[in-house]
Amino acid sequence: MLRHLTAAAFLLAAPALADPLPSWSEGPARAQIIAFVDSVTDPASDDFVPVADRIAVFDNDGTLWAEQPLYFQAIYAFDTVKKIGAEDPSTLTSDALKAAAKGDIETVMAGGEKALLDVVGLASAGQTIDAFQAGVSDWLADARHPTTGMAYDAMTYQPMVELLRYLRDEGFRTYIVSGGGIDFMRVFAERAYGIPTDQVLGSYGDTSYTVGDDGVPVITKTKPLVYVDDKEGKPINIMRILGKRPIFAAGNSDGDFAMLQWTTAGDGPSLGLIVHHTDADREWAYDRDSHIGQLARGLDDGPGLGWVIVDMAKDWDRIWSSQR
Amino acid sequence: MLRHLTAAAFLLAAPALADPLPSWSEGPARAQIIAFVDSVTDPASDDFVPVADRIAVFDNDGTLWAEQPLYFQAIYAFDTVKKIGAEDPSTLTSDALKAAAKGDIETVMAGGEKALLDVVGLASAGQTIDAFQAGVSDWLADARHPTTGMAYDAMTYQPMVELLRYLRDEGFRTYIVSGGGIDFMRVFAERAYGIPTDQVLGSYGDTSYTVGDDGVPVITKTKPLVYVDDKEGKPINIMRILGKRPIFAAGNSDGDFAMLQWTTAGDGPSLGLIVHHTDADREWAYDRDSHIGQLARGLDDGPGLGWVIVDMAKDWDRIWSSQR
Repeated sequence: MLRHLTAAAFLLAAPALADPLPSWSEGPARAQIIAFVDSVTDPASDDFVPVADRIAVFDNDGTLWAEQPLYFQAIYAFDTVKKIGAEDPSTLTSDALKAAAKGDIETVMAGGEKALLDVVGLASAGQTIDAFQAGVSDWLADARHPTTGMAYDAMTYQPMVELLRYLRDEGFRTYIVSGGGIDFMRVFAERAYGIPTDQVLGSYGDTSYTVGDDGVPVITKTKPLVYVDDKEGKPINIMRILGKRPIFAAGNSDGDFAMLQWTTAGDGPSLGLIVHHTDADREWAYDRDSHIGQLARGLDDGPGLGWVIVDMAKDWDRIWSSQR
Repeated sequence: MLRHLTAAAFLLAAPALADPLPSWSEGPARAQIIAFVDSVTDPASDDFVPVADRIAVFDNDGTLWAEQPLYFQAIYAFDTVKKIGAEDPSTLTSDALKAAAKGDIETVMAGGEKALLDVVGLASAGQTIDAFQAGVSDWLADARHPTTGMAYDAMTYQPMVELLRYLRDEGFRTYIVSGGGIDFMRVFAERAYGIPTDQVLGSYGDTSYTVGDDGVPVITKTKPLVYVDDKEGKPINIMRILGKRPIFAAGNSDGDFAMLQWTTAGDGPSLGLIVHHTDADREWAYDRDSHIGQLARGLDDGPGLGWVIVDMAKDWDRIWSSQR
C-alpha cells in the first residue's frame, strides 16, 4: 500500500520536476527568471502575488519572433501591395505604392510615415476583418523568409515560447503588447504562442460597422494605424485594456522601454527582461545602431533597474520553435 | 464499498444540481437561457461551442445595475464637481460647471455634449488613474441613491449577478461592454460582478505617460470621452479588444442594439438578451420614451431576431443584490 502511494505521489509530482525552460542554458538570466517566479508563487514568500495579479506582457517583433530584415508585417504588406498592383495597376496611386509593388523597400522607407501608411492602407483598408485575416493566413502558409527560407511563423523563439508556457503554468496571464497590428497578430498568436485573441494588444486602425440590405452586419477596416502601440503607447494601452499594472514585462528594443519601466515601477515584486540580439550566427546581432529594433537605453539603464538582459548567443541553447 | 462510491458520486454531482438562477422565476426567459447554455456546453450537441469561444458580453447601466434617475457615473461627476467647486470656486470656469456645482442637472443636460464633457472633465482630468479610482471608491462608500437610499454599488441586479456566475461556471468568459468609463467601472466590477479589470470594456479618455524627476512614471487622465463605447462603438470595441465575436450578449437599451445584432449574426449558436424595465414598484418602468436607456428598436425587432426579452416584473423574483 505504501509503495503504491509513493508511486502515485511521484507521478503527481512529476510535471513540476520537469525542466520548465529546457532551451535556456544554465546562467544568470535563466536563474533570475526562475527565482522571480518561485518568489511570487510561493505563498510563504514576502513577495507572494495572488493569481489575479500575475500579469505578464510581451512585445512580439524581436521578442517572441524575429524582425529582420524588416518587421514581418511590413514584408506582408509589401507582398500584398505587389499582388494587388499586379492585378490592378490603377490601385497604385502614389509613388510609395508604385515603389512597394516593385519591392523597392528603401524608397518607401525614405518616404516616412505617410508612405508606410499608404502601403499598409492598401494592404488592409476596405477589407472585413475576416477577409484580411484569411489573406494573412494564406500568406503565412506560402511566404518564406528571404534568408532563412523558413515560414515566418516558424521563426518564433523556442525559449520564449517555453517562458510563456512556464508563466501560464504558474498562474500568470500572458499578453502580447506589440507595435504590430492586432488583426495581423491574432491570426497566429494562439497557434504559435498559446495566446488567445483577447490577450493580444497592439496597434490598430479604424473600422466601420455597417448593416447590409440583407440585414447582415459587417465590420470593415477603414483607416490604418490610428493607435500606435509603441513607446509610451504601450503602458497607456496596458492600463486602458488590462486596467492593472503587470508584474512581468519582456521586450527587445527601446520601443519597449516605457512598458518595462511602468511594469517595474510598481510597489510589489516585478521583473523586466530584454532580449539582446547577440547571435549573428543563428539569428542576427544588432542593438544601438540598428534600423529596426534599436536598443540603447535598455542596455544603458536596464541593468541598473534590475532588468534581466538576455544574451541570445549565450543564454539560448536553441533559437527557433520549428525547423519547418 | 458500493454505498461509499454512490455517496461520493452524489457529493460530486451536487453543485450541478443546485439551481443556477434562483432569483429568476419559472418562465420563458429563464427556460431560454438554460436551454441555450445546455446546448452550447453539451459535447454531444450540434450546437456545442468549445470553451475558447464561449464569450459573453454585458452592458452595465440598466443591465447589471440601475441607471435611474441618471447614470450613476453622471451622479458621481455632479457630486465631485460640487465638491471641487466648493473647495475652489475658480475651477468652475463655464456655465455648465457652475450649474453642475449647484446640482442643476437640467441646465447641464440642456448644454449637450460640450457641457457634459466639461463636467466629466473636471471630475477626472489631471488625476492619476489611482487617485481617480480612490475618489470613486470613497464616493461609493458614502453616497446614497436619492430615492432608494441604497449604496449605488448595492443596486446591482441579483438575477444578472447569478447569470454571470452561471455562465462562468459553464466555461464562459464574461465581459462588461458599457458606455460607462473604464476607470470608473473597474473600481467595483470585480467585487460586484466577479469581473476582473481586463474584462471591463467601456468608454475612455486620453491619458499621458510621464516620468517625474524622481524617475517614477505616472499615467494621468488628460481628456475625457475620446472613445464612446455605445451603439456601433460596442461591436467595434469588442472586435478591437476581444478579437472574436461573442456568442451571448445582454443589454437593455437601443445603445446595445448593434452589440446584440453583431453577436447574434454569427454562424454558430448565439443568444441575445434584453432587460426590459417593467417594474415601477421594485425598480423603474421605462422604455420607448425614456430620457435614459431608451428602448424601442430592441422591442420592435428583438423578438423576430430570437432575442430573449426579460420582463423584469415577471421574470425576476428578486431585484437587488444587496439590501445595504
